[in-house]
Amino acid sequence: MNYVLKLTVGGQGLYDITHKVIETLNSAGLDEGLVTVFIRHTSASLLIQENADPSAQRDLEAWLNRLVPENDELYTHTVEGPDDMPAHIKSALTAASLSIPVSGGAMMLGNWQGIFLWEHRHHRGEREVVLNLLHSNW
Amino acid sequence: MNYVLKLTVGGQGLYDITHKVIETLNSAGLDEGLVTVFIRHTSASLLIQENADPSAQRDLEAWLNRLVPENDELYTHTVEGPDDMPAHIKSALTAASLSIPVSGGAMMLGNWQGIFLWEHRHHRGEREVVLNLLHSNW
Amino acid sequence: MNYVLKLTVGGQGLYDITHKVIETLNSAGLDEGLVTVFIRHTSASLLIQENADPSAQRDLEAWLNRLVPENDELYTHTVEGPDDMPAHIKSALTAASLSIPVSGGAMMLGNWQGIFLWEHRHHRGEREVVLNLLHSNW
Repeated sequence: MNYVLKLTVGGQGLYDITHKVIETLNSAGLDEGLVTVFIRHTSASLLIQENADPSAQRDLEAWLNRLVPENDELYTHTVEGPDDMPAHIKSALTAASLSIPVSGGAMMLGNWQGIFLWEHRHHRGEREVVLNLLHSNW
Repeated sequence: MNYVLKLTVGGQGLYDITHKVIETLNSAGLDEGLVTVFIRHTSASLLIQENADPSAQRDLEAWLNRLVPENDELYTHTVEGPDDMPAHIKSALTAASLSIPVSGGAMMLGNWQGIFLWEHRHHRGEREVVLNLLHSNW
Repeated sequence: MNYVLKLTVGGQGLYDITHKVIETLNSAGLDEGLVTVFIRHTSASLLIQENADPSAQRDLEAWLNRLVPENDELYTHTVEGPDDMPAHIKSALTAASLSIPVSGGAMMLGNWQGIFLWEHRHHRGEREVVLNLLHSNW
């Protein structure tokens, strides 16, 4: 079964979507199986990261912004704005899909793991993430 | 069910394999479920990226070539040629497997998303990608 | 079905876990299907890489250590030690989940592909990896 999450973002940054995935699993009633998270964009991506200390997320963003700066002379794809090509590169370096085992009705995430949508553009608007749920077939 | 795609590549670059995945889904008759794309190599990788503007792909390749150049003094693994170690590093930074939800007989890709094989070596030859198809079991 | 592998690591490095995944598949008796490997940490990650020549693994580690050094002035998340923030960044750049097709009782890995846990911290201790097994349902 597939569910489309529509997520409103307000510019570059990490958006914790863990609770939305949990809500979908609970409402669908998946007890044992696998959930696959897929993002339908090429200038935003997915990340599993520490959800405890905001400084880890801030450093992650700052580091990637330094590695992939705007206005790099190398870019020829500039018609959609200075944040567009860096967003494609950042997306290529991170994940478009993530698969997480489910047991006892809960994702088997580690203690400090959260699932994030990583918006790489400055724009505000809507992003779509698909959740695919598979039951265990053992 | 698993299908092996044999793909001929002609040196470094992004090869759009979206249509080949679609053909396999159609011929297998997967209506609702999940397709997993897996590459059987460590010097080529998978990527979901914009398929509309070739300049985005060109910049992506140029950027990664600059980040991971050939003939870096750091490399000790040089016996297979100057493009071999950069190819392993580029593969590590991108994807070996991708999972894409399927609904109504079609992958739930975004409007501008294509699936690419990213060849990181200069050689011409054959690469193998496995497609695993799972039916929804709801 | 989900299995938790408990793995002992002795500091930074690549740990080949291919044989442990094979053992689990064999003991569970998965003939056709998909195995998903998921790591329950944000300072260690997963990698599919060449298992033949140790120099490729050494260069991969050396390259990533140079790209993401300790004691970068950019870091503000330093309370857990100088290796913690680099470990989060390295994990973000590599994989938290990998899905590998299974056929004839074996993973469809390429000739030189191994599955590795990539420990990014200096500590010694235990890491947990979940294996999710799905039967083909065709």
